[in-house]
Amino acid sequence: MYLEQIDSPADLKKLPPDALCALAKEIRELIIDTVSENGGHLGANLGTVELTIALHYIFDIPADSLVFDVGHQAYTHKILTGRREFFRTLRRFGGCAGFPHPRESKFDASVAGHAGTAISTALGISTALGAASNPHKAIAVVGDGSLNCGISLEGLNNAHAGGKNLIIILNDNKMSISRNVGGLARSLNHIISGSFYNRFKTAAKRLLFSLPRHKTLHKMIRRFEETVKYLILPGGLFEELGIRYIGPIDGHSIPDLLYHLRHLESQQAGPVLLHVTTEKGRGYEHARQNPARYHGVPGFCKATGAIASSGKPSFSSVFGEAAVELAARHPEIHAITAAMKDGTGLTPFAEAHWDRFHDVGIAEEHAVTYAAGLAIGGLRPICAIYATFMQRALDCVYHDVVLPQLPVIFTLDRAGAVEDGPTHHGIYDLGFLRALPGLTVMAPRSGAELRRMLEFAYELKRPVAIRYPRGGSNVPPGACVPELQFGRADVVRAGAGPVIWAMGPEVDTALAAAELLNMDCCVVNARFLSPFDAELARKLAEGRTTISIEDHVLSGGLGTALDEALSGTPHGGILHFGWPADRPVPHGKVGCLRREFGLTPEAIAETVRKTAAP
Amino acid sequence: MYLEQIDSPADLKKLPPDALCALAKEIRELIIDTVSENGGHLGANLGTVELTIALHYIFDIPADSLVFDVGHQAYTHKILTGRREFFRTLRRFGGCAGFPHPRESKFDASVAGHAGTAISTALGISTALGAASNPHKAIAVVGDGSLNCGISLEGLNNAHAGGKNLIIILNDNKMSISRNVGGLARSLNHIISGSFYNRFKTAAKRLLFSLPRHKTLHKMIRRFEETVKYLILPGGLFEELGIRYIGPIDGHSIPDLLYHLRHLESQQAGPVLLHVTTEKGRGYEHARQNPARYHGVPGFCKATGAIASSGKPSFSSVFGEAAVELAARHPEIHAITAAMKDGTGLTPFAEAHWDRFHDVGIAEEHAVTYAAGLAIGGLRPICAIYATFMQRALDCVYHDVVLPQLPVIFTLDRAGAVEDGPTHHGIYDLGFLRALPGLTVMAPRSGAELRRMLEFAYELKRPVAIRYPRGGSNVPPGACVPELQFGRADVVRAGAGPVIWAMGPEVDTALAAAELLNMDCCVVNARFLSPFDAELARKLAEGRTTISIEDHVLSGGLGTALDEALSGTPHGGILHFGWPADRPVPHGKVGCLRREFGLTPEAIAETVRKTAAP
Repeated sequence: MYLEQIDSPADLKKLPPDALCALAKEIRELIIDTVSENGGHLGANLGTVELTIALHYIFDIPADSLVFDVGHQAYTHKILTGRREFFRTLRRFGGCAGFPHPRESKFDASVAGHAGTAISTALGISTALGAASNPHKAIAVVGDGSLNCGISLEGLNNAHAGGKNLIIILNDNKMSISRNVGGLARSLNHIISGSFYNRFKTAAKRLLFSLPRHKTLHKMIRRFEETVKYLILPGGLFEELGIRYIGPIDGHSIPDLLYHLRHLESQQAGPVLLHVTTEKGRGYEHARQNPARYHGVPGFCKATGAIASSGKPSFSSVFGEAAVELAARHPEIHAITAAMKDGTGLTPFAEAHWDRFHDVGIAEEHAVTYAAGLAIGGLRPICAIYATFMQRALDCVYHDVVLPQLPVIFTLDRAGAVEDGPTHHGIYDLGFLRALPGLTVMAPRSGAELRRMLEFAYELKRPVAIRYPRGGSNVPPGACVPELQFGRADVVRAGAGPVIWAMGPEVDTALAAAELLNMDCCVVNARFLSPFDAELARKLAEGRTTISIEDHVLSGGLGTALDEALSGTPHGGILHFGWPADRPVPHGKVGCLRREFGLTPEAIAETVRKTAAP
Repeated sequence: MYLEQIDSPADLKKLPPDALCALAKEIRELIIDTVSENGGHLGANLGTVELTIALHYIFDIPADSLVFDVGHQAYTHKILTGRREFFRTLRRFGGCAGFPHPRESKFDASVAGHAGTAISTALGISTALGAASNPHKAIAVVGDGSLNCGISLEGLNNAHAGGKNLIIILNDNKMSISRNVGGLARSLNHIISGSFYNRFKTAAKRLLFSLPRHKTLHKMIRRFEETVKYLILPGGLFEELGIRYIGPIDGHSIPDLLYHLRHLESQQAGPVLLHVTTEKGRGYEHARQNPARYHGVPGFCKATGAIASSGKPSFSSVFGEAAVELAARHPEIHAITAAMKDGTGLTPFAEAHWDRFHDVGIAEEHAVTYAAGLAIGGLRPICAIYATFMQRALDCVYHDVVLPQLPVIFTLDRAGAVEDGPTHHGIYDLGFLRALPGLTVMAPRSGAELRRMLEFAYELKRPVAIRYPRGGSNVPPGACVPELQFGRADVVRAGAGPVIWAMGPEVDTALAAAELLNMDCCVVNARFLSPFDAELARKLAEGRTTISIEDHVLSGGLGTALDEALSGTPHGGILHFGWPADRPVPHGKVGCLRREFGLTPEAIAETVRKTAAP
C-alpha cells in the first residue's frame, strides 16, 4: 500500500518511479469507492490518474501552478495533496468539494467548475511568473471537450504573448461529456490516427543516434525535422497559433509521461502543448463502456454498475419526451444542446429526430446564436442549457435572440441549488433573465405544467425561457393543470391569511408550509416571472403578509419582483425565502442545504410564525 | 451619378460591372459626409464599400442571407438597400440605426452590434436552408478582429456540420478596433505575406492550361495541388477545421471580387471561407492614417479631419490618468483591455507602462479570466471593459474572480445610455453585477470621485466593479470629494423634503431636479450599489417620498435596491426614474433620449410634483 504513505506531493516524490503504477491502481480504487457512495464525476477522473501522478512527481506544486479545467479531472490531485481521507467526504455538506477551490487547499490554484477557463487562468499566472523572472511553470490541464469553448480558444489565441512559462496539457479522451464534436475534435483525431509523422520522427531519431556526435549535423537534422513537422501538420493548428506542439503520447504510460514532463519542466520555452491521450472510465469497466452515462453520477452499485435513481420522473425526462412529441407535430422544431445530450433529457430527441438535433459541444454562446440563426431561417429551435451555464451566453440571449424578438425557446435545466456547489448552483439566472426586455420567463410547478409551458412557448412565437430544477416534482404526471394565461399567476390554495408566492416545485414547499402554519394561507403559483403578475400581487397584499419562496438567491428573482410590485402600494409586510445573495452557497445534498439555510417547509413555517402578523 | 438610380439591389444589378468603381466613390462620399455630420463608424465602413457592392451584385439578397458581424461594416449595405436618403439620418432618434436590424429592413438578416455573432447566425441560417433543400446561401461578413471572439471560434469549430450553404467572408484589415493581436492575426499575416503558395498556385495553373485536355492527368495535378496546398498551409487553420479556404484576394478590386463571388454563388460546397484584404479608412486620408482614432467618431470636420470634442474631461480620460499614476506607485498593477485601448482611456497606460499593458483583442471572457490568472500570480489587474460588452463575461466574473474573491478591479466604461442604441446601451450591468455575491459595485459622481474609488478598490483587495458613462461630469476635476466608506452613501444635499437617491453623474440630475422642485429635497449619492446602504435608505424614508434616478433600466439597479431595502419598512412612497425595463431603448443623442423618456431634471421635477406627497 503506497497511498497510505502519501500526505503531500513531497511524499509522492519519495517513491521510486516503478511504484507509481501500483499507486495509480490504489487511487482508482479510492475514487471508485467514494464516487459509488457519494456520487460525483467518475469517467474523466479515472482517466487522469497517471497524468496527475506524473505531474506531481515531476513538478513542484504549488510553486509550479497546476490549473485544472473543470474539476472533473482533479480527484487524483486532491487525493495526492493531503486530502486522502477528506476525499471520502466528497460532495457532502462541509466535506470535500467536487471541484478545486483555493479555499480548500493551497494546492488548488483556481476555482474550476465551468469548462474552458484553464488556459486563460494559467496564461495569467505565466505572465505574472514572467514579470517576476520566476522560472516556475503554469500548467493548464485541459480536456479536449473544453477546447471547444470560446474562452479556451480565446486563450489559445493569446497564448503566444506572455506564455513563456505556460504548459498546456491537452487531455484527449475524445469526449467532452457526450461524444465530442466539431472541427477541432476532427483535427485531433486526424493527429492521433495520422501515423506518418510519428514514423518519420522515429526514423529521424534513429538516424540522429546512429550518427557521430557532430554538432552542426545534428542541428541541421533537427531543423529539417522541424520543417517537416510544420509541413506534415501534427497539431498544425496549434503551431499556427504560435504554440509548440508535442505529442500525442499515451496518458496511461507513466514512463512516457515522466519522460516528456521532465523535458518540459527543464526548459522555459512555452507556450507548449503536450497532447496526451487518455481513456475516460479507465479501470472501471462499466464507465469505460458507457462514458457519457458515468460522466457524473449520483452514486452507483460498485459490483453491478447500477446507477441510483430518485424514482420520480425528472423534469429533464419530461422535457425530453415533450420535446419529441412537439417536434413530431411540428417539423420545424429543432433541438440544440451544448454537450449535454443526456443531462438535458434530449437523448430520445436525438434518436427520434436525429436530423433536427444539434450537439454543438461545450459552446453555449454559439448554441444560443446558432439557435437565433435557425429561427431567422424559419425553424423553431429549442435550446436546452443548464441554468448555471446560461451565464456564459447572456449576451447572446440579449443581442441575438431578445433584441430581434426571435421565437427561440430556452429550457434551463438544473435551475436552483444542486449538489455540485457554488460553481453549479443555478440560482442567479432569474436575476439576469428578468432584466432582458421582452424575454418571457416561466417556471413549471410540475412535469405536466412543463408540458403546458412548452406548448405555450411554441404558440407565443417570441423568446421564452423556462427554468426547472434537477429532479422531479411531487405532482403526479397526469395531474390536471389549469390553462396558462400570459403573465398571469395561478392561485392554488385560496385563503384569507398570509399570501405565499412560489415558483416551480417550490409551490409544493409553500403548500406544505401553509399546512403547517394553519393560518388560512393563500398560496400562489407565480408561473411567470416576466412579465410578472404585479396586479394580482398588489390585490392580494392589502392588509396581509406577502411571503415569497424560491429556489434562487434572494435578490433578482421572485422576491425582488414582489418588492418592485408592492413598493408603491399599502401592504401588510413582506417576507422572503431564498438562498442568501451576499455569499456563495456551498456544496452538499440539496436537502441538507435547505435545512442549513432554513428553506424546508418546517423552517419556513416557523420563521413566518415568528415574524408575520396573524 | 449612379447612386441616385439605386433604390434596391435590383437597381444595382442593372449597372454594368465597369460602373461599380465609380459607384463606390459616390458611396464613400455619402458615408464621409454623413459620418462627419452625425458621427458613426467610419474606418471599417470605408473599407467594405467594394465588397458590399460586389456581394449585392452577385447574390440575391435577402433570398441569400447577408449577415454582418458588427454593423461597423454595414453602411454600404444600408445605402444599397433602399435606405440611401434615410441614411442621412444616421444615429438620430427615429432615424437610421448605426447597426443592422431586421425591424429596419428585410435586407438586414440579424441584429449586429456586438462582435463575433455572424458565423453562428449564418451557420444557423445555412442549416435551415439545408433542411428545406434551398440552394440559397448564408453569407457571414466577418472582420479579422471579430475572429478572435470566442463565439466566432466556436462557430468556426461547428461550421463543418450544417455549413453546406455557408460562405464566410473574412474581411481582413489587420485591425479589430485597435491594432489586431493574437495568434490568429499572426497566422493571417503569415498567409498574406507568404507568397510561396501563391507562386506555386500560379505555376500549377499555368501548367494545367498548357497541358492537353486529359481528364486523368488534370485530376492528378489537382489532387497534387490540393496536397501541396494542405502542406504549405495557406489558411491551414481553417482547412484543419473542415472549412475550405480561398484567398487572400484584394477587397478593393471589383473584378477580383466579382470573379470569386460568382464562383461561390454557383456552387453548394460550403463551408467555405473567402479571405479578402481591405484597408480601414480607404478613401479618407485622415482615417486611413489613423484608423483607431477614426473607428467610431462623434462627428468631425471633413476638410481638416478634426474630431468634435465635448470639452469636459471624460471619465475615460480621468480613469486613464489615474490608472497610470496608481501603476507608477504600485508596480504590481497591470491593465487589460479587450481591443479598446483608446476607448477605455488606456492609451497613456500603454505608453507609460507598456510591459504591464495587455490588449487581448475582442475577447472579453479571456480578458476577465486572464485577469484572474494575473491576480493568482500576485499581480493587481485592472480590467477595463465597456458595460455592454461585460455581458459577454458575466460567467467569468462570477466563476473566476468573484468565487475565489480575487482582487481584480473592473472598470465599466460607457455605462448608461449611449448614442449607438439598444445593442450598446450599458443599462443592464447593475442588474447582473449586483447579483454576484461578494462583488463590490460602485459608481462615481465625478472624475475626482472615480480617482478615489480606484484607490479604494486597490486598498480593498477584493473584486470590485466601477461603472461610469461616456462623457464627463459637471463637477470640476479639482473638487473636494468626501472620503469613501465601504457600503456607505453620501448625503450631498440635506433637506427635510423628499429624498432623491442617485448614482454616478445622475447625482447632478438629482441636484438640478431638487433646485427646480423647491421642496427642501434631500439628495443622496449612493456611491455603492453593492453592498447598498439600506440602513440609510430606511432611516431617510420614514414619512417622506423616496425617489431614485439612475442611468440604468428600472429593474435590477438602484431603484430595485431601494425597493428591497424599504420593503419591510414604513415609508412615504417610492418613485423611480430610469430607462424602461420592458422594451429596448432606441438609438439617438442621449439628451434626446432623456427628453423622450422623461429623464431630464425638468421632466423629473414635474413628475415628482404631480405624484409625490408634499
